[in-house]
Amino acid sequence: MLIRKLDRDAFVNAYNVDLQLLYPWEGVAESPFGAAWAVLAPGESTKPHAHQECETFFIAGGRGVMAIGEDRVEVEPGHVTFHRPFDNHVLTNTSEREELLFLTVWWEDRGRWSAGDGRPVAADAAQAAGPWAGVERVLVTAAPPTPNGDLHLGHLAGPYLGADFCTRALRLRGLDARFACGSDDNSIYVQSKGRELGWTAEEAADRFTAGIEETLAAAGINLAAFPRPNASPYHAGLVQELFRTLHERGELVEKEAPAPWCERCDAYLFESAIRGGCPHCGAGVVGNTCEDCGTVFDAADLVDPACTACGEAPGVRPVRRLFFPLSRWRDALTDYYRRVEMGPHLRSLCERVLADGAPDVAVTHPCDWGIPVPVAGYEDQRIYVWLEMAPRYLAYARHVNDATGSSGGWERWWKSPESRVVQFFGFDNSFYYGCLIPALLLAYDRDVRLPAAFVTNEFYRLDGLKFSTSRDHRILGRDLLAEAPRDAVRFHLAHTAPEREETNFTREEFRATVSRELAGAWEEWLAALGRRVEAAGGTVPSTGDWTPEQRRFYHRLESLLREAEDAYEPASFSPQRATRAMIELVREARRFASGERHWSQAEARGEERRTALALELLAARLLGLLAAPVMPEFADRLWRALGHEEGPRDGAWKQALEWLPSGQRVDLGGPRFPELAEYLARAEAGAGRAAA
Amino acid sequence: MLIRKLDRDAFVNAYNVDLQLLYPWEGVAESPFGAAWAVLAPGESTKPHAHQECETFFIAGGRGVMAIGEDRVEVEPGHVTFHRPFDNHVLTNTSEREELLFLTVWWEDRGRWSAGDGRPVAADAAQAAGPWAGVERVLVTAAPPTPNGDLHLGHLAGPYLGADFCTRALRLRGLDARFACGSDDNSIYVQSKGRELGWTAEEAADRFTAGIEETLAAAGINLAAFPRPNASPYHAGLVQELFRTLHERGELVEKEAPAPWCERCDAYLFESAIRGGCPHCGAGVVGNTCEDCGTVFDAADLVDPACTACGEAPGVRPVRRLFFPLSRWRDALTDYYRRVEMGPHLRSLCERVLADGAPDVAVTHPCDWGIPVPVAGYEDQRIYVWLEMAPRYLAYARHVNDATGSSGGWERWWKSPESRVVQFFGFDNSFYYGCLIPALLLAYDRDVRLPAAFVTNEFYRLDGLKFSTSRDHRILGRDLLAEAPRDAVRFHLAHTAPEREETNFTREEFRATVSRELAGAWEEWLAALGRRVEAAGGTVPSTGDWTPEQRRFYHRLESLLREAEDAYEPASFSPQRATRAMIELVREARRFASGERHWSQAEARGEERRTALALELLAARLLGLLAAPVMPEFADRLWRALGHEEGPRDGAWKQALEWLPSGQRVDLGGPRFPELAEYLARAEAGAGRAAA
Repeated sequence: MLIRKLDRDAFVNAYNVDLQLLYPWEGVAESPFGAAWAVLAPGESTKPHAHQECETFFIAGGRGVMAIGEDRVEVEPGHVTFHRPFDNHVLTNTSEREELLFLTVWWEDRGRWSAGDGRPVAADAAQAAGPWAGVERVLVTAAPPTPNGDLHLGHLAGPYLGADFCTRALRLRGLDARFACGSDDNSIYVQSKGRELGWTAEEAADRFTAGIEETLAAAGINLAAFPRPNASPYHAGLVQELFRTLHERGELVEKEAPAPWCERCDAYLFESAIRGGCPHCGAGVVGNTCEDCGTVFDAADLVDPACTACGEAPGVRPVRRLFFPLSRWRDALTDYYRRVEMGPHLRSLCERVLADGAPDVAVTHPCDWGIPVPVAGYEDQRIYVWLEMAPRYLAYARHVNDATGSSGGWERWWKSPESRVVQFFGFDNSFYYGCLIPALLLAYDRDVRLPAAFVTNEFYRLDGLKFSTSRDHRILGRDLLAEAPRDAVRFHLAHTAPEREETNFTREEFRATVSRELAGAWEEWLAALGRRVEAAGGTVPSTGDWTPEQRRFYHRLESLLREAEDAYEPASFSPQRATRAMIELVREARRFASGERHWSQAEARGEERRTALALELLAARLLGLLAAPVMPEFADRLWRALGHEEGPRDGAWKQALEWLPSGQRVDLGGPRFPELAEYLARAEAGAGRAAA
Repeated sequence: MLIRKLDRDAFVNAYNVDLQLLYPWEGVAESPFGAAWAVLAPGESTKPHAHQECETFFIAGGRGVMAIGEDRVEVEPGHVTFHRPFDNHVLTNTSEREELLFLTVWWEDRGRWSAGDGRPVAADAAQAAGPWAGVERVLVTAAPPTPNGDLHLGHLAGPYLGADFCTRALRLRGLDARFACGSDDNSIYVQSKGRELGWTAEEAADRFTAGIEETLAAAGINLAAFPRPNASPYHAGLVQELFRTLHERGELVEKEAPAPWCERCDAYLFESAIRGGCPHCGAGVVGNTCEDCGTVFDAADLVDPACTACGEAPGVRPVRRLFFPLSRWRDALTDYYRRVEMGPHLRSLCERVLADGAPDVAVTHPCDWGIPVPVAGYEDQRIYVWLEMAPRYLAYARHVNDATGSSGGWERWWKSPESRVVQFFGFDNSFYYGCLIPALLLAYDRDVRLPAAFVTNEFYRLDGLKFSTSRDHRILGRDLLAEAPRDAVRFHLAHTAPEREETNFTREEFRATVSRELAGAWEEWLAALGRRVEAAGGTVPSTGDWTPEQRRFYHRLESLLREAEDAYEPASFSPQRATRAMIELVREARRFASGERHWSQAEARGEERRTALALELLAARLLGLLAAPVMPEFADRLWRALGHEEGPRDGAWKQALEWLPSGQRVDLGGPRFPELAEYLARAEAGAGRAAA
């Protein structure tokens, strides 16, 4: 029997206590903690100390007093104390004769400190308990596309596919996640694009939105709701209510301020009507938001401004508008930024806005397109389209609630403690989503649950240059999706889309990647696996004996699962990393299979052969799960081929490493990426013709 | 204070014990174990049970008897029992009045079982304690190259670079690892190649060995010893001593058996002198070992044999030779195979050899090249060159001992319990290293420590076809090393060399990989990091505040470190995976840097800026360490640029994540891969010319 006794000969003295080290127990147990019996002599105290490990004392005999900081408690057998990392603690034996016997157990908790110089890192209680503990539902949203053109790959690869991947991953984890978005019909850009084409603003909004919806559908983006603001039964009413409420509370301030005015066109210039240089970084800008540095400024401050319509340098006229003084919300936003997950780019921009004083933002503009201002004296102005964004998310909640028909009402999507909101947008929208909209919502209703995580993307380039509709340097989503299979497009965009740094799209790289990985390594492996299963009778074997190599493969699957899990987490969202984990999984599985196939030569190794095949099938099942958010069709096809009745369903992540039931029929005969080979052959033939 | 008392109201009864659950302590501690106070009433017993967790009882009060299986022990306060997964255990309170109070602690040990269906996996005691616990020195060896030609990339990428990477990685871990190898001068292939060129066998051995040594040196392979058998003061003597000992013990048996004989050449045909079809798989074979399936057979069994010299089909003549009956060592080998680490391909071959009865191996051959047979009546024969391989490793130990001049004598390299031997070879040598040599050593000296791990490689192809010296379808190591920088060659061979499956080399891929990764992603990142450090004063900052994203990056570095560690472990040796971990590290570091650079915009974030830069420098330091076994020059250059006095030294792995000392001067100005850019430019110009 493996037993040890309290052994005074084994005592070592440390911290003024006699210690008998018990765990790790050499040659017997590699425990994830250390443990020792400790005996404190009568009247003695342990040396006061603080260390980076978590520690707990279990009092077994005697009596004493425990002190942590200023805190003192009498202890007796059966008491258990816990000391956080760096808690300074002293235990005193208060008896005059009896020894104090206690068990000390210590372990490292990487969530509570960070190694190296030993400095404590403030423990994040929410994180220790898991950032999504207790969460039941998540509303995922993305910046609404402006219907002044169709979506190009830069749009798709940015917020829309990201939000779709995220929503699907959250659903796999068992959360009721829904992706809702809508079109940005009331943007002045829609009106000006319509003018250019000889359409009314309504016509432009209708036509372009129809195209956008087709593209989103073609990309397989699963939207719970995509309301159009002027058709929504909720939108305009909510916008006006919010506006009125803020006005009544004095949160909107009337100011006459100089604004750009084109003398030749006799027009007030804002948004798409004016261009010039960013006063912060000098980049060329349309309107008053710099795409390059994210700064938002007053259009009157543009460097070398010009009227977009006629090209003339505008003058300046005083214009009376309503402003939202953002500076009043500095403390509330500072507090909010402590809670919300966001990347360093966005965080530093938000902090810079507050540090620079936070501007007054004009929320009405003299124009004839948009929602009317519900305040007397502003009949000739419309509500600024960015103000619409705040209440539109409340409208989404209503639309989602209508669509899902579930009980509890729309408020549970925005007000319940079990709900979270995750918001996707391109970095150029940072000021609005990071500063203006949260402040507007705080000003309107303190009970509204602000987004828990912002996920931003940088610019996607095409052949090295920024995507540009005006220069026609772009590939429309619908065009690539018409050429190539949807899963392949989604995979490549996930694999290359810009997360923290700008990235580049080329058709050559797209073809090379999906050809090498999906049509190549993945398909070859799964087809070969199919042949191995056929040769073994066509069904899933039960596991038998395990070799050390097989155990290592299993642990490798576990670690790739954790990697993908982390990559789908909104706080560390990275489809790039998720697809890399899938690619690595296929590499590891191929390597494993190459080794394990040799068991067929060893007659006595039938058990190991079964384990090898079961593990390889487990890897295929896991691949389907990890890929499901990005390539739902592939996942569905693969899981059905593995004998499941359907693809990974909601909550499937919880059984990520569950074995396929032994005896289940497997048929990996068909291709997993139908039409991909044909697409690649066509593309190659085309490239050949182009070269000839 | 965080304290809990023994609380009878909180008791739950399970297994017939009253339990108070203590850990995890909700909201306080997420411990890596579970713990509970347990109170067993007088006269009662716990329900007998077995579970998958490891468990330990600490007896705090009372008296009882613990039973595990048939084993029974009396327990009292201070006693500690440990139960392995699935140990069936019962604790009985033997007192009539007093309660038995104990603390139970349980945890999962993934090394001891594998999740899923909950079946236990035989615990490997050696592995549980860490496969290298207590090991101090390692002799790494590789199959000696035959001097009948220079080394091509297939040779280099196989055992030689592998053994060099492994030795360097073990030294970084603090073990006294040495790579010793030598030339295979006495192979009959040397004599026949010499004849072809009009050289004596000695001349051929001298010339080709000189070339091989130059190539090994050019590849940066660090050999502690590379003795030539006929110049070694030890080799021939040890071979003859082993031979004589085996003969005296009756382990060598005289047999007259039919052997191939060329009537036209009047010559006994073996090894390079005969070719034909493998009797096992049908592949074309020279000699009696099939490169394709690894089978070793009697040359008389070749299908459609032909004399290599004249092409005639040989006849058969009875020849009297000495044989080593391998079958006598079946049990000893079976036992050895339980202990040695090897991949499934080799393991299945070894098991097949034993299952097929294990052949008698001819250890003398009628010829005039090789070491004379020290037994009367065999003056016209020489010792089979594969028998030389067994004692040659004892000779290596002597040479290494001479070279290192350390105390303890050569035997500590082969006989001490603190020593290990790791052996590298191509899969076509499997029979010899896996079966014959261990049996010869067992027959010679039971105290000799057999290899602890075999690392095999499969074939490397060139442009899709097997490397072949005879068809001149090959690239010599020296040629590529003369063209391209050594580090780049070593990196690409590590990244692509065949481990479990055959892989392919093309010059285009070589250039594309080192251009994209080393000259591209790596160099760009390190140069940009250098500029960031310069901008921050040119020295390493101390860490300040940590953001959640920074903590996540640190944990990612930890996980990549573990991945690389595993890849350099002899039991799971995979330079492919090690280089992928490096590539991933650079990707993660670039992503991290792209985000963190924005703190420069946030004035209040000076502390986070320091942490970001310190973390990025830590990542660079870690990259140098992970890369050191593969690219020692890069590692050295990088660490010096980071301000260290030298590259990663022996034992450096133990401080893998140690911060660079704050205030240390950093100068990342120079290129990390000097001459790589020039090589790539030359190659591109050459490719341009070829296309024109």
